Amino acid sequence: MAKIITVRRSVFSANERVAAENRTLLDRNGVRLVNVMGAPGSGKTTLILATAPLLAPLRCGVIEGDVAGDLDAREAEAAGLPAVQVNTGGSCHLRADMVAEALRAMPLAELDLLFVENVGNLVCPAGVSLGEHANVVLSSTPEGDDKPEKYPAVFRTADAVIVTKAELAELAGFSLAAFEARLRRLNALAPLFVVSARTGAGMAGWAAWLRERAGGGLT
Amino acid sequence: MAKIITVRRSVFSANERVAAENRTLLDRNGVRLVNVMGAPGSGKTTLILATAPLLAPLRCGVIEGDVAGDLDAREAEAAGLPAVQVNTGGSCHLRADMVAEALRAMPLAELDLLFVENVGNLVCPAGVSLGEHANVVLSSTPEGDDKPEKYPAVFRTADAVIVTKAELAELAGFSLAAFEARLRRLNALAPLFVVSARTGAGMAGWAAWLRERAGGGLT
Repeated sequence: MAKIITVRRSVFSANERVAAENRTLLDRNGVRLVNVMGAPGSGKTTLILATAPLLAPLRCGVIEGDVAGDLDAREAEAAGLPAVQVNTGGSCHLRADMVAEALRAMPLAELDLLFVENVGNLVCPAGVSLGEHANVVLSSTPEGDDKPEKYPAVFRTADAVIVTKAELAELAGFSLAAFEARLRRLNALAPLFVVSARTGAGMAGWAAWLRERAGGGLT
Repeated sequence: MAKIITVRRSVFSANERVAAENRTLLDRNGVRLVNVMGAPGSGKTTLILATAPLLAPLRCGVIEGDVAGDLDAREAEAAGLPAVQVNTGGSCHLRADMVAEALRAMPLAELDLLFVENVGNLVCPAGVSLGEHANVVLSSTPEGDDKPEKYPAVFRTADAVIVTKAELAELAGFSLAAFEARLRRLNALAPLFVVSARTGAGMAGWAAWLRERAGGGLT
């Protein structure tokens, strides 16, 4: 038992140490790192690609985390964003060392804001430091309005929460009031944005929050 | 390093042993266990509750796995199904010992088929034996048609794959051909069902498969 705890603590410390190194490197280059988390298919890639153009003149890049494949990095590059794909090879979340490797492949001097799209997962990425300046959690309306109650950790530590696919809310039977009530039991302060990347609804408010935090320092 | 491997192997063996015990207990009671996996909000609870009435005269029950809360078990009980909620307390998938505990609380002698709704997660439940007779993976149309490519392990080991929320496919821009092509690269044999629990479309085919397997033995 004691052995297991020792191993876990050592792994944890190693990740914290690498996360701190990432943060130092980012701060030295004036780049803000935004850790984007959400379930598979919650719309992380779509949101990032729709948000980046709204942040001009800030220059954005993206680190794409997936268990396998490079679909998202190819999509980001096609949209004109500097992109690096990280394959976790089975791991259910990104770790700081994976982000460190991706940072070495990124033109940091040419960037202001770097999105990290974490592995699609509402459980495992929670609380795993990457060196990020902000944690953003997405929840799409077709997933239902009960997600904060079922996956509390990731919502508790979010700096902003974004309800995506607003255009499907009515068809999906999604209640924003129910979602917000469940979120507020865990997290009283994080702003809640309701957006549709497809129609553009709500995108300006979310982008303004991000721009302000990136300019003034996402901390 | 050797120490870590030892610990992991021992944990793995323990799970396999408990899974085998679960299987023995289920077989002795003539109960088939179906492990239902999918992303958060993919429609696992809704599908299970819509499927159970179609399986009559087979008698169904459900074990609900969640990180926190008892929303799903309460919903299942309200629908008249014997239900047990398992809270994993942070763990990202069910383990055989959690199912063993739930089985002790279930009226096995009165059941023919027991659904296990795993934690919403497309990564971690893959390959974790519970003693199940069949592994079923859900993927909802709003998640997009690229999920098999991004989360291969869980699709590779599926005995059946179910595309849910078919009524949202067009609005969500979901291509069934693209999904199926990606699935078939990993899994040539598992039947693919396209269903809408809301409209009932496709439910008869999936229920017939399940009934046949449950009657003839899900192995």
